[in-house]
Amino acid sequence: MSTGRGLEGIVAGDTDICSVAQGQLIYRGYEIHDLAENATFEGVAFLLLEGRKPTDAELARFSKELVAERALPTAVTDYLHAAGPMLRQGQSTPTAVPMDVLRSAVSILGNLDPESQDNSAGANLLKSKRLLAKIPTIIGHMQRIIEGKPLVDPATGGDPSLSHAGNLLYLMTGERPSPEAERVTDVSLILYAEHDYNASTFTSRVIAATLSDMHGAITGAIAALKGPLHGGANEAAMEMLREIGDYVDAGHTVDEFMQRAFTEKRKLMGFGHRVYKNGDHRAPILHTLGRKMAEARGPEYLRWFELGEQVQDIMLHQKQIHPNVDFPCGMTYYAMGIPVPQYTPIFVASRVSGWAAHIMEQHANNRLIRPVSNYTGPEITPWNG
Amino acid sequence: MSTGRGLEGIVAGDTDICSVAQGQLIYRGYEIHDLAENATFEGVAFLLLEGRKPTDAELARFSKELVAERALPTAVTDYLHAAGPMLRQGQSTPTAVPMDVLRSAVSILGNLDPESQDNSAGANLLKSKRLLAKIPTIIGHMQRIIEGKPLVDPATGGDPSLSHAGNLLYLMTGERPSPEAERVTDVSLILYAEHDYNASTFTSRVIAATLSDMHGAITGAIAALKGPLHGGANEAAMEMLREIGDYVDAGHTVDEFMQRAFTEKRKLMGFGHRVYKNGDHRAPILHTLGRKMAEARGPEYLRWFELGEQVQDIMLHQKQIHPNVDFPCGMTYYAMGIPVPQYTPIFVASRVSGWAAHIMEQHANNRLIRPVSNYTGPEITPWNG
Repeated sequence: MSTGRGLEGIVAGDTDICSVAQGQLIYRGYEIHDLAENATFEGVAFLLLEGRKPTDAELARFSKELVAERALPTAVTDYLHAAGPMLRQGQSTPTAVPMDVLRSAVSILGNLDPESQDNSAGANLLKSKRLLAKIPTIIGHMQRIIEGKPLVDPATGGDPSLSHAGNLLYLMTGERPSPEAERVTDVSLILYAEHDYNASTFTSRVIAATLSDMHGAITGAIAALKGPLHGGANEAAMEMLREIGDYVDAGHTVDEFMQRAFTEKRKLMGFGHRVYKNGDHRAPILHTLGRKMAEARGPEYLRWFELGEQVQDIMLHQKQIHPNVDFPCGMTYYAMGIPVPQYTPIFVASRVSGWAAHIMEQHANNRLIRPVSNYTGPEITPWNG
Repeated sequence: MSTGRGLEGIVAGDTDICSVAQGQLIYRGYEIHDLAENATFEGVAFLLLEGRKPTDAELARFSKELVAERALPTAVTDYLHAAGPMLRQGQSTPTAVPMDVLRSAVSILGNLDPESQDNSAGANLLKSKRLLAKIPTIIGHMQRIIEGKPLVDPATGGDPSLSHAGNLLYLMTGERPSPEAERVTDVSLILYAEHDYNASTFTSRVIAATLSDMHGAITGAIAALKGPLHGGANEAAMEMLREIGDYVDAGHTVDEFMQRAFTEKRKLMGFGHRVYKNGDHRAPILHTLGRKMAEARGPEYLRWFELGEQVQDIMLHQKQIHPNVDFPCGMTYYAMGIPVPQYTPIFVASRVSGWAAHIMEQHANNRLIRPVSNYTGPEITPWNG
């Protein structure tokens, strides 16, 4: 038996939803540069969930449905308030990060959903839209609770006139974002929406394939996305850049930091990708937009892009490793003033559309996902030997 | 590219923990019949988590550690009380089943665990023991809340003199179980503890392999176990038997039910297994013990075994399909008076030991688990075409 550790290069199934090839990233027939330039996140979410590009009327209807589903049930808001002390425990270390609280909140949403036990295509689509609408509200309310500020519009889950991206920023800050910030966030959500059988999506399919329910599958996917080898890399990349910033402030150079990291065989976050060997298509799109915003905001924001570009140059020339999308995402969200522990939750606010599409695809044509393993343990001995 | 739909027969990695072969089921070198006859669940859990058979002193210490960790934090008890109405909504359909509430409760436990963000071997072992100790308390308290009865010993999480299995029954019913009921439950927990890369364990490894945390990985595994193609089969098998009982009461025969089921190509729960083609080693062990208890309790309990045996005979002779462990488990738990929606949560109370062992094994020698997919979607079209 050959051992496919990490399942690298193993085809685990078919999908109509996404193609990740060296040359192109495609969502249901639309190429990622085209989507980033010409679509909105709501249009992409419709594409992923409903299976086709929306007409203008369909997109308006879909956006309205999301707005109507933004507010949270009381039980979830109660839980978020109870989680406040877990997220900020005075002087001691908090026991939870926002990804953990988002995982619990989505699980509780499932406990309350009238369609929770129904895996039909219709029920799954309804639940997808509810989750897509409510996750930004969970993130926004949680951030306000962390900061000890009042929730923004809990009765409506935000401002009905704002887009998914704009409302997410508004719920977190209480201020309506600039068109530039809204657009950069919208593009980041488009780029993060879907990526075929990545670890969290694969998790959601393994769960759904037991004929478990959508909320359970998405709860598991959130748990998987948290890891720094997956979605958590956008937070980890920015933490590393901040460390480099401190190191430079102390009189060293970026190159010194990098050589030390190479010597210590330290893993540099936001670089390399299991699937992309010649660079992640999404990274330059977000880098360009994020840099432009940082330039407009001033040198204290631009600084992170300048440091990041030095890191990228050294990685490319000395290790031939390209940044992935999480690297510019970290710098971009930082330039927008978003607290670092919310970067991966914002990734969830987008990727939930891809997860839900995959769960529906799995349920529509199901087969249990159950590999085997290669036993390397001890030979048989009697228990009372 | 070949398509490994369902990953059937694909080796996804190595493990020291378990071997599932046609001939034998082995936990770290000990064969399942031997364990069922000679070990206790606590001994098996130590074996799985600590990697070797305990000495008497080690087993006593381990059991004491579990007893000390049984009580739940207030935030989890509060959530369980809040979940009561979701589990029993008067005349309308409840929006949650116990597996969903257990998933949320474990996720919240993670939010409160002081080691939640620490993936070291030591922290993972601590968290494993806490989860193992607390899951029966979640199940017991939840059942009392469903029945509108006071929680059993919330300050201690049960009776310190009772075993893991015995205390689980006590927490649910408020009555100390008979030695027979305790032993049958203990054996069922031994049989359910571990089963190599089954769907829920594989879920926990995929999540852990992003370097996410143990509570997240176990939350995802609970979501996977719920499905009727996996752990949920013990509930589904018993529901099917009850349906057969009603059908027989209405003047039909078991054979008539089965022939109709075959004609309708209905999936019969608790039969067949992805890995075992010649029968599940665990099924006869539990069947024998469960039947003996049902005989002692009286004909209204024995009836389900007699009906179940007719179903098994027809399946074996007409379809050459053997029962798996979930089939006798359903009848056994029914004979013990355990409410059907708690069968899969009780499976969790055991399997958490296997999941935790796999998460620790994954973290100790990690590689991201990320397969690829075969794109079957549309060709590229421009968005504004």
